[in-house]
Amino acid sequence: MKKYVFGVDVGGTTVKMGLFNVDGEVLDKWEIKTHTENGGEAILPDIAASALAKLEEKNIVKDEVAGIGIGIPGPINDEGVVPHTANLGWGYKEVTRELEELTGLPCKGGNDANVAALGEAWKGGAAGYSNVVMVTLGTGVGGGIIIGGKIITGSNGAGGEIGHLHVDDNIPGHCGCGNQGCLEQVASATGITNLANQALAASDKPSMLREGEVSAKTVFDAVKADDELAKEIAERFGKYLGTALANITAIVDPQAIVIGGGVSKAGPILLEYVEKYYQKYCFKSCRNVKFTLATLGNDAGIFGSAKLVL
Amino acid sequence: MKKYVFGVDVGGTTVKMGLFNVDGEVLDKWEIKTHTENGGEAILPDIAASALAKLEEKNIVKDEVAGIGIGIPGPINDEGVVPHTANLGWGYKEVTRELEELTGLPCKGGNDANVAALGEAWKGGAAGYSNVVMVTLGTGVGGGIIIGGKIITGSNGAGGEIGHLHVDDNIPGHCGCGNQGCLEQVASATGITNLANQALAASDKPSMLREGEVSAKTVFDAVKADDELAKEIAERFGKYLGTALANITAIVDPQAIVIGGGVSKAGPILLEYVEKYYQKYCFKSCRNVKFTLATLGNDAGIFGSAKLVL
Repeated sequence: MKKYVFGVDVGGTTVKMGLFNVDGEVLDKWEIKTHTENGGEAILPDIAASALAKLEEKNIVKDEVAGIGIGIPGPINDEGVVPHTANLGWGYKEVTRELEELTGLPCKGGNDANVAALGEAWKGGAAGYSNVVMVTLGTGVGGGIIIGGKIITGSNGAGGEIGHLHVDDNIPGHCGCGNQGCLEQVASATGITNLANQALAASDKPSMLREGEVSAKTVFDAVKADDELAKEIAERFGKYLGTALANITAIVDPQAIVIGGGVSKAGPILLEYVEKYYQKYCFKSCRNVKFTLATLGNDAGIFGSAKLVL
Repeated sequence: MKKYVFGVDVGGTTVKMGLFNVDGEVLDKWEIKTHTENGGEAILPDIAASALAKLEEKNIVKDEVAGIGIGIPGPINDEGVVPHTANLGWGYKEVTRELEELTGLPCKGGNDANVAALGEAWKGGAAGYSNVVMVTLGTGVGGGIIIGGKIITGSNGAGGEIGHLHVDDNIPGHCGCGNQGCLEQVASATGITNLANQALAASDKPSMLREGEVSAKTVFDAVKADDELAKEIAERFGKYLGTALANITAIVDPQAIVIGGGVSKAGPILLEYVEKYYQKYCFKSCRNVKFTLATLGNDAGIFGSAKLVL
């Protein structure tokens, strides 16, 4: 009888770990350091040792554990193989096979943005829905597509690469991916700052944003204070993201759309700007999609990784 | 031991039917009339009678038949229920349950554009691939998304509604769906004709297209004859469709993209214009997607419907 499951979320500096019961309640969560030196050779042994120590501490035997799910900051295929993960120091690595050998437990792996989406669909903003699109607005724009309760990984691990939808030929500069005109260039924290700086340079309109440093946070704070220029910036952001989400919906037709990441801390006002353009451009039968903010924060990854196993 | 399967493709004027072996070889195919009068009440009984007569003709017993798959020109959910299908005269209808009762055979249903995609992924242009995007360029623009060998139906039956991606704010007029700026307005047969008429009106450039009636076919015939204005029209079409397919790829990351429908009869030259912009805007790890023309023509629906059952 399986009672427990581990969820692990590997980041470039720390590994978040969680022990859950199979109903998705967190029994314990903790962090260990990510040792990326020497090709990241210690990362999986460290995770294995920490998980096994936790079982001993809690007097849990392996037979009671359904397995370990692990989220990786890079592409990983459905067989648990990563071709290369620069920020962990890894080259080709059979992640789940190695972790199974180290722990004696079944292991499943996924991309971190994808498992965060799975976490929000399981126990977060979209709990109870099996068809979910999640977009994470942070330094970049990440995403995950959940259909029938399962992640769309894609043939090259590029499923849910929402940040790299081409949205405009006329965006200055290039995206980190090498392309030009990506959603990430206008909807990430950096992207919103860029939109704001362009708007400030293009007009003489008075604005709170002219005092101090501009960021996604100061833009939405100014929107809440009814600043006209900030509202124009939010409209432009909302049009880009709302139209992109309408297009995603015409492809996979989800029940719910979850918006997370640091930018989403702006709260419900951000959803208003996005939904306005979503409703304008979505296919009519998809008008009733549920828009929601992410609720699990930095824990979405450990929840989603645990769910991978169940 | 199941040896046979029926594939049925219901259209507004005729129903195409096929008897296959379970390896996907066509043993027989034929058509019956679609009787849409009286709320389309005869459609399913006609299909059932025709299928049962075929079994008798071929001396096949029901135990040898895996079932009947049926494609419908409208939304149908995974439980085989259609809310309403105007062009068949149907209101709410439990299609697969009724057909099971009429035939005593298991039945599965799908939307016609989606099952055509499944057919092309099974035995057509994308045979051997389990992750496939198909776009059908006909009077409208239809599509289907196949992931892990299964159709993405969507929560409202709107999965794969590729024709209703928003691609441009400045397209004149409205799409049949009520929105403005849909891919269907520029990439269907009608859409290409519209692009051509706009180009002819906007310039004095000499062109073969100024003689006789303009259509998607005459545009691509003129492209093959090296007509400059026709090539400009094809570039615009290619940019719209290639960018849309790049965006779809960043969501579901398929192995292959199949282009079908009447417009695709233009042949490989059409793929050239589309792939050029696909390669410009796609997420880098998706560059090796296989582009291919559909090969099953009007039979894609019966193949895909049959595959639904297997």
